Amino acid sequence: MRLPSIEGSGPGRQAVYRQIAGHIRREIEAGALRAGARLPPIRALATDIGVNRDTVALAYESLAGEGLLESVVGRGTFVRGLSVAAKPRALVDLPLADSVEGLLAYENARPRFGVAADAVPLHSLVPDPAFYPVNAFRRVLNQVLAREGAELLRYGSPQGRPGLRQILALRLQRGGGRVSTDDIVLCHGASQGIALALRLFAQSGDCVAVEVPTYHNVLATLVALGLRPAGIAQGPDGPDLEQLERTLQRPDVKAFYTIPTFHNPMGTTTSLGARQRILEIAARAGVPVIEDGFETDLRCFGREIPTLAALDRHGLVVQLSSFSKSLFPGVRVGAIAATGRAIDGLLALKRSTDLSDAMPLQAALEAFVRSGAYDRHLVRIRRMLRARTEAILDALAREMPAGTTFTRPEGGYQVWVELPFEVDSRDLLADAAREGVLFAPGSQFLPEGGPSRGLRLTLARADEDEIRRGVAILGRVAKRFHAAGPTALDAAAVNM
Amino acid sequence: MRLPSIEGSGPGRQAVYRQIAGHIRREIEAGALRAGARLPPIRALATDIGVNRDTVALAYESLAGEGLLESVVGRGTFVRGLSVAAKPRALVDLPLADSVEGLLAYENARPRFGVAADAVPLHSLVPDPAFYPVNAFRRVLNQVLAREGAELLRYGSPQGRPGLRQILALRLQRGGGRVSTDDIVLCHGASQGIALALRLFAQSGDCVAVEVPTYHNVLATLVALGLRPAGIAQGPDGPDLEQLERTLQRPDVKAFYTIPTFHNPMGTTTSLGARQRILEIAARAGVPVIEDGFETDLRCFGREIPTLAALDRHGLVVQLSSFSKSLFPGVRVGAIAATGRAIDGLLALKRSTDLSDAMPLQAALEAFVRSGAYDRHLVRIRRMLRARTEAILDALAREMPAGTTFTRPEGGYQVWVELPFEVDSRDLLADAAREGVLFAPGSQFLPEGGPSRGLRLTLARADEDEIRRGVAILGRVAKRFHAAGPTALDAAAVNM
Repeated sequence: MRLPSIEGSGPGRQAVYRQIAGHIRREIEAGALRAGARLPPIRALATDIGVNRDTVALAYESLAGEGLLESVVGRGTFVRGLSVAAKPRALVDLPLADSVEGLLAYENARPRFGVAADAVPLHSLVPDPAFYPVNAFRRVLNQVLAREGAELLRYGSPQGRPGLRQILALRLQRGGGRVSTDDIVLCHGASQGIALALRLFAQSGDCVAVEVPTYHNVLATLVALGLRPAGIAQGPDGPDLEQLERTLQRPDVKAFYTIPTFHNPMGTTTSLGARQRILEIAARAGVPVIEDGFETDLRCFGREIPTLAALDRHGLVVQLSSFSKSLFPGVRVGAIAATGRAIDGLLALKRSTDLSDAMPLQAALEAFVRSGAYDRHLVRIRRMLRARTEAILDALAREMPAGTTFTRPEGGYQVWVELPFEVDSRDLLADAAREGVLFAPGSQFLPEGGPSRGLRLTLARADEDEIRRGVAILGRVAKRFHAAGPTALDAAAVNM
Repeated sequence: MRLPSIEGSGPGRQAVYRQIAGHIRREIEAGALRAGARLPPIRALATDIGVNRDTVALAYESLAGEGLLESVVGRGTFVRGLSVAAKPRALVDLPLADSVEGLLAYENARPRFGVAADAVPLHSLVPDPAFYPVNAFRRVLNQVLAREGAELLRYGSPQGRPGLRQILALRLQRGGGRVSTDDIVLCHGASQGIALALRLFAQSGDCVAVEVPTYHNVLATLVALGLRPAGIAQGPDGPDLEQLERTLQRPDVKAFYTIPTFHNPMGTTTSLGARQRILEIAARAGVPVIEDGFETDLRCFGREIPTLAALDRHGLVVQLSSFSKSLFPGVRVGAIAATGRAIDGLLALKRSTDLSDAMPLQAALEAFVRSGAYDRHLVRIRRMLRARTEAILDALAREMPAGTTFTRPEGGYQVWVELPFEVDSRDLLADAAREGVLFAPGSQFLPEGGPSRGLRLTLARADEDEIRRGVAILGRVAKRFHAAGPTALDAAAVNM
């Protein structure tokens, strides 16, 4: 390698190391120095061009920083790969799939606002970490890894650990179902279960019937899969059955996603009668029902009602369960129960999606449930939830404007509130957040994302005192909005 | 409740408890006994109809076993939900999505055969569990859970743990990339990464260019997503560049999935020149490149070649990495590196797919890598792999029929063998499996699944002695097939 004359440093001139580096860079870019070529040793080059060794070292270092050179200890400095890394990047605007563009637009529509530092989190559905049985879980996790070793660190069966499926089947049988170990596919949280169940029956362009309002992440998942929601109005006893019948008869509607027990966001429980009717309607239409039972283990009041899966004689129901709300989300174990070819399809989809879940977590969960620790934990959680439910119902009755309606959940974390005047609850949110309480505005749970006078409050993160404080702030904000009179909103556009 | 007269037991008559149970069942089915109705106490009913108490208890128990009744301790026995659980089920044949039907058909096409008990597993890509650093990993897992507690058991960020992303970014930078912590989305194994990357650019009906042969699970994932493969012939230096240019110009081709380093199944490494050309072609077409680097950490011979991502000036490359082959699959951590809106899209897809990965495993992996244990493990794995690679190349040269060709991998677990005569390697598999060696027939890696004279051998599970034994058996079987002369196969239909 020959270097042109070096000008020396001084005003108006490049630093010497930069001149050296620039020359080498040009040689690489011109192809005169190729990938793998060895550069002269620092000492030799420094002598050769009459500069300090540190200057050459600095030049090499700066080129290495650009990714053009690499030093191998004891071997020297080499030209590395292509020089492209050093060229300014000219990013191509990659076209993303339409469904991804739709998903990004959907996510960008979510409200953003300032929040008081100690705002009461009545918006969050993440269970309170104060209740997680961390040490008990850590111990079983450590034990199963010590006991089963490397076997647990291979790929597991895509269907999931048989022992865990077995105890889940037994638990689902208690709920009246006839589930066997083979009828269950474990998955990476119930969210994955939802996505797999939707994909089992529907593909881009198809419709899926959903309750309105419904779980907002399901709406996002529909968008991501190129599916369209067909809304069924959700009332206190369950979905509007006439609308459901009409909708499921449509040829483009491939499934009905429903949350019959402790509905999200409404907190309602679909009555036994409505459950029977839903199954009759689905059977007539030959349309499968995806039953999301994410909080079924969290009943605090009233008698248990058989799940749709337990009532199903026709193999119509794909039932999702989860440990995220009843234990903690971090275990990432959900379950899908189904029959016949649906199981084959789910397994194939699961395999093509991520091959296998993490067996250490499934094994630890199995040990945790078998030991009775999960049932003991449930007792504790239900007691907590009962106290919080009573506190919020009490506070809502006391603090909210007259005429406000709200649901009375028999379990689960969510309560649905409807304001007695024309308003988009999103408009309340900015004020409420600033003054110290957060909630999920109803619009978030609507397929169209339009205005809603409804809002979801949750009991997951706030204790009784915080709940009382939060609802008091919410009541104050709501009364102020009410007193200010109807907003510019068109009353007809306000649904729920 | 009134019971009809009980006939007493005896030949030709139902057992008394069955008569009682049958009557109650009919009452429930007729609706005379409704859900929630309380049955008479055992003692009262026994006295009433003049039978032994145990007989009544048995009747109640058998109905409970059918799901019709439930006993609540201290409260009595109740009719449970609907009686449907007891009726014979009439399963509806649920229509699955076309893509799922396609996936099931694809999976059913895989060969099934008998296998010798001690068959040498030259088919498996699951790394040898004997090499998993189980106890070291168990200890860091226990430590991070003890240290970080409940925080680790919440949902994590959908992007993944920042500390782990940071050290992965540093490692990718060493390979010449300019990846930052924010350019990485962690995922549930690289398999999930593949599915997410495909969905980022393509949706049902679109095409994706893939090398032929290619990783069979990618072919399954394409089917599951309703995508069609556009094949690019893969040679010893990489994909056929003319074919790639023509294919990427097609408007229906939305991405190119490639495995440039230690190709699966071929074991080849795409040359630096070919990498540069691939990027030029992709840039001209404006088509993204999905670079699967699942074994990049497993180089045993030769100099490292910059990844496509490192050479990419245009933000065209989405790069996948994995710990499944270099550490163990059970950690279920993969990474996707990308830039700009691709990251936004991946994040949205990840969120809509399963919300978050399991943070305990990501935290443990971070601690494991930071401690240097991962790099020490790599030294050990590469040494093992080097010895096995030498053993198999040696054995192939010695044992296979004259004219057999095979690749000489510089790293990774797979070697591709092509037989020098007309044959579908599937036809060899049944004999080979029975005689004691397993391999993956080439057809498995072809989009159309047609016949192939190629076969993939792997070094993941067999040690040097086993490799020698397995290849000797394979050579014997191959020579026998050769000697038997051309099969009925049409020579023209045999590709690769």
